[in-house]
Amino acid sequence: MKIGILGLGLIGGSLGYDLRSLGHHVLGVSRRLSTCEKAIALGSVNEASVDISLLAAAEVVFICTPIGLIVPQFQQLIDHLPVSTVITDVGSVKAPIVKAIAPQWSNFIGGHPMAGLAESGIEAAQRDLFVGRPYVLTPDETTPKTAIAIVEEIVRSLGANLYYCPPDEHDRAVSLISHLPVMVSAALIATCMGETDTHVLQLAQNLASSGFRDTSRVGGGNPELGVMMAQYNRQALLSSLAQYRQNLAKLTNLIEQSDWAALEFQLQANGKARPKFVE
Amino acid sequence: MKIGILGLGLIGGSLGYDLRSLGHHVLGVSRRLSTCEKAIALGSVNEASVDISLLAAAEVVFICTPIGLIVPQFQQLIDHLPVSTVITDVGSVKAPIVKAIAPQWSNFIGGHPMAGLAESGIEAAQRDLFVGRPYVLTPDETTPKTAIAIVEEIVRSLGANLYYCPPDEHDRAVSLISHLPVMVSAALIATCMGETDTHVLQLAQNLASSGFRDTSRVGGGNPELGVMMAQYNRQALLSSLAQYRQNLAKLTNLIEQSDWAALEFQLQANGKARPKFVE
Repeated sequence: MKIGILGLGLIGGSLGYDLRSLGHHVLGVSRRLSTCEKAIALGSVNEASVDISLLAAAEVVFICTPIGLIVPQFQQLIDHLPVSTVITDVGSVKAPIVKAIAPQWSNFIGGHPMAGLAESGIEAAQRDLFVGRPYVLTPDETTPKTAIAIVEEIVRSLGANLYYCPPDEHDRAVSLISHLPVMVSAALIATCMGETDTHVLQLAQNLASSGFRDTSRVGGGNPELGVMMAQYNRQALLSSLAQYRQNLAKLTNLIEQSDWAALEFQLQANGKARPKFVE
Repeated sequence: MKIGILGLGLIGGSLGYDLRSLGHHVLGVSRRLSTCEKAIALGSVNEASVDISLLAAAEVVFICTPIGLIVPQFQQLIDHLPVSTVITDVGSVKAPIVKAIAPQWSNFIGGHPMAGLAESGIEAAQRDLFVGRPYVLTPDETTPKTAIAIVEEIVRSLGANLYYCPPDEHDRAVSLISHLPVMVSAALIATCMGETDTHVLQLAQNLASSGFRDTSRVGGGNPELGVMMAQYNRQALLSSLAQYRQNLAKLTNLIEQSDWAALEFQLQANGKARPKFVE
């Protein structure tokens, strides 16, 4: 199959490696000529161009740009495609993208491979990035079964764990387990760096170990990515933050009231619940 | 030197291994006979007993019990010791312990090796646990220089990184980088497990990956330990929580107001500040 990839970063580049290994002919498009040249040299794509019309020959196109460029790039892309081309994207928020694209392109199905790394760019692309990772598809009632079947087969062939859900359920779920942690973690760093007693601040910096390191990791990550999550998933994130602030107020109350039995009960419940998410 | 260890768990047991390797004669006391037998069999101590009077022969005693037992065990211990014996403890909160013990025992110096693991008990004890880890000593103005020198030399010989500070500064610093993360992380788990839409909850469980895993780790840990931190470091933790809640309210405000430039500025500042704590 001829498959197009628009945006040759970590996800697009990794997708290219796997699709080529599976015997597909991969057409890549990047805004930068140097990225096109790298993608060819690395073997991530068969052909590459800065000219989006290269994708006219593709049966399926994956839009793998940063989330803010998905809709604008889609608008440019469709001038060059026959209506039979199946389009999918890899954006980490789905409702606004599906809402913008689905009414304009029948053969569109939103997607989200949960395979982010700290690194980005074609240099960070790797083979088998999607193996064993969740890959969410968010068709709506208008999405043709044939389009779903084609994207589903590709996703399965990558070794990913496939999930289907409506776009807004996806966005609420990732708000809880991906976007909320960024803000929770960011506020932790802000609190520690805001310590005004310089002796305590210095000591905190010297003593911080694995607990701080893990809890602060995502809050100290890529700022642009954090902003994009908040921007594109604003409502769901605000709702998660409101829930979170209530839960933190409850915990704080238990400590204020020295209600150690209730605090232990809550921490025990947490210990039991966590493996349902991460084990 | 004859060194006593009261409490043969992870920290006491590990200390025993290293002190023996350094050529000291190690006397261990545990409330359980089976733990005494294990400690001898494993080679963590030279002698062990459930009878606290075994420690009468020690020149230095490390109290390595859970934090709630440090003061009660100290009260029993001192009936058996000459006033020349140097006593130190390994509790993770220092002000309440120093306040209770220092007025009663001149040769006392509070300590805190930052070397916790998820596991506990003598079976989890390991050699070189303290190498390269922070070890805080919290003498006050009344602590004899000779007592400080003796404990300092032992701590250095373990390969730990030694820090000195007043007990309350220690407690405020660990409140920020160790106890606050537990509560922040606990509220994250509580929020996710509290999702009332079962489809979203199920999806969140399926999609959760490294971001959730790291941010939720310490909040899903040992409940007794979490409660003890809150109980013994209550004031400092409440103060850290108040600061944290203000910072989270600020971040939430930026998102409510769609002030993406200010959000990016804060996330960038976080990314710059974090390495001062963990790298």
